[in-house]
Amino acid sequence: MIETPPLVDQYCHGVLRTELGLGTFEAQLIPSAGPPAAGTTFFDTQTGFAVRRWCPPLLGLEPHAAPARYLARRRELGPAETARRLLRGSGAGVYLVDTGQAGDLTGPKELALAGDAEAFETVRLEALAVQAADTSGTVAGFLAGLAEAVHHAAAGAAAFACAAAPDHAGGPALDPDPPGPGEVRGAAGRWLAGRPRGGPVRDPVLLRHLLWSAVPSGLPLQLHTGTGDPAALTGFVRATGGLGTRLVLLGGHPYHRHTARLAEVFPHVYADAGAGLGRTGARAAAVLAELLETAPFGKLLFSSGGRGLPELHAVGALVFREALTRVLGGWVAEGSWSWRDADRVAAMVAAGNARRLYRLDGP
Amino acid sequence: MIETPPLVDQYCHGVLRTELGLGTFEAQLIPSAGPPAAGTTFFDTQTGFAVRRWCPPLLGLEPHAAPARYLARRRELGPAETARRLLRGSGAGVYLVDTGQAGDLTGPKELALAGDAEAFETVRLEALAVQAADTSGTVAGFLAGLAEAVHHAAAGAAAFACAAAPDHAGGPALDPDPPGPGEVRGAAGRWLAGRPRGGPVRDPVLLRHLLWSAVPSGLPLQLHTGTGDPAALTGFVRATGGLGTRLVLLGGHPYHRHTARLAEVFPHVYADAGAGLGRTGARAAAVLAELLETAPFGKLLFSSGGRGLPELHAVGALVFREALTRVLGGWVAEGSWSWRDADRVAAMVAAGNARRLYRLDGP
Amino acid sequence: MIETPPLVDQYCHGVLRTELGLGTFEAQLIPSAGPPAAGTTFFDTQTGFAVRRWCPPLLGLEPHAAPARYLARRRELGPAETARRLLRGSGAGVYLVDTGQAGDLTGPKELALAGDAEAFETVRLEALAVQAADTSGTVAGFLAGLAEAVHHAAAGAAAFACAAAPDHAGGPALDPDPPGPGEVRGAAGRWLAGRPRGGPVRDPVLLRHLLWSAVPSGLPLQLHTGTGDPAALTGFVRATGGLGTRLVLLGGHPYHRHTARLAEVFPHVYADAGAGLGRTGARAAAVLAELLETAPFGKLLFSSGGRGLPELHAVGALVFREALTRVLGGWVAEGSWSWRDADRVAAMVAAGNARRLYRLDGP
Repeated sequence: MIETPPLVDQYCHGVLRTELGLGTFEAQLIPSAGPPAAGTTFFDTQTGFAVRRWCPPLLGLEPHAAPARYLARRRELGPAETARRLLRGSGAGVYLVDTGQAGDLTGPKELALAGDAEAFETVRLEALAVQAADTSGTVAGFLAGLAEAVHHAAAGAAAFACAAAPDHAGGPALDPDPPGPGEVRGAAGRWLAGRPRGGPVRDPVLLRHLLWSAVPSGLPLQLHTGTGDPAALTGFVRATGGLGTRLVLLGGHPYHRHTARLAEVFPHVYADAGAGLGRTGARAAAVLAELLETAPFGKLLFSSGGRGLPELHAVGALVFREALTRVLGGWVAEGSWSWRDADRVAAMVAAGNARRLYRLDGP
Repeated sequence: MIETPPLVDQYCHGVLRTELGLGTFEAQLIPSAGPPAAGTTFFDTQTGFAVRRWCPPLLGLEPHAAPARYLARRRELGPAETARRLLRGSGAGVYLVDTGQAGDLTGPKELALAGDAEAFETVRLEALAVQAADTSGTVAGFLAGLAEAVHHAAAGAAAFACAAAPDHAGGPALDPDPPGPGEVRGAAGRWLAGRPRGGPVRDPVLLRHLLWSAVPSGLPLQLHTGTGDPAALTGFVRATGGLGTRLVLLGGHPYHRHTARLAEVFPHVYADAGAGLGRTGARAAAVLAELLETAPFGKLLFSSGGRGLPELHAVGALVFREALTRVLGGWVAEGSWSWRDADRVAAMVAAGNARRLYRLDGP
Repeated sequence: MIETPPLVDQYCHGVLRTELGLGTFEAQLIPSAGPPAAGTTFFDTQTGFAVRRWCPPLLGLEPHAAPARYLARRRELGPAETARRLLRGSGAGVYLVDTGQAGDLTGPKELALAGDAEAFETVRLEALAVQAADTSGTVAGFLAGLAEAVHHAAAGAAAFACAAAPDHAGGPALDPDPPGPGEVRGAAGRWLAGRPRGGPVRDPVLLRHLLWSAVPSGLPLQLHTGTGDPAALTGFVRATGGLGTRLVLLGGHPYHRHTARLAEVFPHVYADAGAGLGRTGARAAAVLAELLETAPFGKLLFSSGGRGLPELHAVGALVFREALTRVLGGWVAEGSWSWRDADRVAAMVAAGNARRLYRLDGP
């Protein structure tokens, strides 16, 4: 068994405070465009199976409990106690919490308290744009308010986060350069005129403006690479090299090998190792091993990607630690790696890389 | 050993009725643009090795028999008896037979009889277009004949099938919307004027027209994703969501993980698990495991992709069952899954999902 | 243990003649756009770990020696003796040496002598263009000189090599057709006017001209597919089919499955199995197994991709042989392959395919 220090979960959201029925719980399991197809359930997925394997024991049930039985136990305990048990059973010591998600989710402090852990905030740039839009009447006012909000947020946050493209599956590559002032004003004007109150940012020019607004802060910038090939980001990655910013590529599966490769080639690029892992359940060791093919071991960062359900935070962490033991332990057993190296790399990916990158131990 | 009910082979073609020499047999093994390179043979592939492993015992020889010895035994038995033994040894109980392939291939009834199984027809939309073109003199006549043929076929078929793009490797994404009437008339006119009798449909506008012609039927629509990234289909997939149609993505390797991901995100998308498996032989368990990372277990469908050689139907089925045992049995052995879940998922992928999707047990 | 004949390393460069400190050694390990990120080192990669596993024993140290200790031993022996020991310990019997790389690297003869092996030259087309540009004053003179150089090189080289695109990650597909004479003159004029002395060729029109200049020679043409999807080469591959040229796709990871697929579909396409393998260290068996899914076994070719450090030549060869034993031996153990077939395929990939393709045993 490979031992790790308490994990740094470098990307997650808060958890829901309300009680969940079978249907509302199921809807949180999978990032789907709609309800499950007739005759199917989201519980019949690797994520569903991993939740049923790892979480029931933390609530006093047998592994692989049926969904209805698990949900009944969850109701007995209540959402707060459920979250407390699951988060404390995960082995995570630090959460970086993305607070830009809509919905009644716990913030960093509440998550820290429930999980007996530390928590830091990751500020979602689109959320700053929506807030600036909601509180300003003109394009100029919006852009000034946004700049002010980014500046202010940089002082307190551990990182910024942003979508790297509205939806670049099969779409064009992300334009590498910052948009010009006139281009930004035009895009802002169109967006402000057309959006419903609170409506999200999807305009590619505005997204690029957000990304470039965060670059001077020097904080790590987490990029959601969406469902497309992160190779589409290569131009932007090149353009930001040497500026002092560090990019953390999130998401990735089934493009995780491409993400790892970008982390290999570009010194300021880091790869998230976690958000996809928990979701792949029994396959996590295989996916982690693929990430470890080309990603430098000092550039790979654990996360759970948990959101809404504390089960996802717990499963992300537990699956990751088991996968790490299996992959690195396997390489030691066959003579490819030394024990000393395996222990060192495990500690780096589990916590050390994130502590250094996000300066969690001070500057 | 994981037990499965008799397999539903949700995508295959008929088998050749004629006797085959070594060269003609070899040419059917691999989807190649030409004969094998000098000094190589298609027998030296995973497909070739899998045929030599699984099929000789069904014909009374040792596994791994040399090609010449195997072909000699095949000639002794004759093509009909060979097909009978191979199909009956495969463990398949139902075939969905794509009848749109040129060549002297057995139809669904003949395949059912040879394999002691049931068979249903999958109607290839391009074949309907070619028939309509061969029997009409004008663009208007062609389009009316095509509409009539689609309507008629819908009454008797289990599914429709169509190429999703003429050849989208490195090409543009499939345009999501149905082409307008003028656009269709123009494309039809150009195609009718230029094609040789019986010539295939490759015009992208006509292909889109075919796809959209099949949507109102409510039958599952099998999409051949060709050699490119199925992410290029995302727009079309979005546009057909909520219309009652269900899409089955065929092909895929080496993009099978992307196919699985589309099945995860979109409720009306299903992923074929089989056509690539048999061809990868000793690697089938690894490929199947990758499909099972993100595809909901209720959305994955076995097929052999067999065509021409009954060896391909048999190998597809036998390799699939061994891979299922290895992958799911392995997860049970390591504690990730319960036996009960593994058996249930095996039955779903082997037969249950297809029975439900294609309404094989009635509406 | 699967035995192989002495390996044919079908793609490598020479080794550095000078003594290397820790920093200069480290910089040669990884193809990075810059120095390692703060707090990280290129030794903490699969390549670094593989070097520390395989090379210390060849120099009389324990496996997994620390970098500083290894470098100290290297200095004790000196660069020539280090290269001699590493190359002779690799099991390679033939090197195809790409001589187009800048830097003070050993040529084929020197490498052969150090490694007690044979060596042949692979001529990089861009290097011929740079030489022709450096020695001619006009566009016409340059193009004539280039044509002459290609013709001359074809007489002595085992193969040509060229980048297939300036950098096609997320970029356009390689235009399949040869550029017209006017187009070539225009591109040559712009490049000659703008380039610094010795400056590399990145113009896509000139690259296409170089590729098509090599086609009539009949020598195998090694294509560097860069960091993008080799599917972007499909048009060029189609256009060169049936012309007598044979294409060897280099690079590939994480697109190695796509490379294998092109080798399956197109009779004149071969896939390099090696350059990515050594770099993935403990993952080499997994990557090799993926290549063996669809690539015909007669189309896969070992290489080390070694450059600068003889460690990379040695690691490439040793990792490859271990991976071959693990993958093929595993398939034999589980009954998928026969021993005889495994031995035969091992000999093909290790040496036989390259001997045939490059006509190393004469025409």
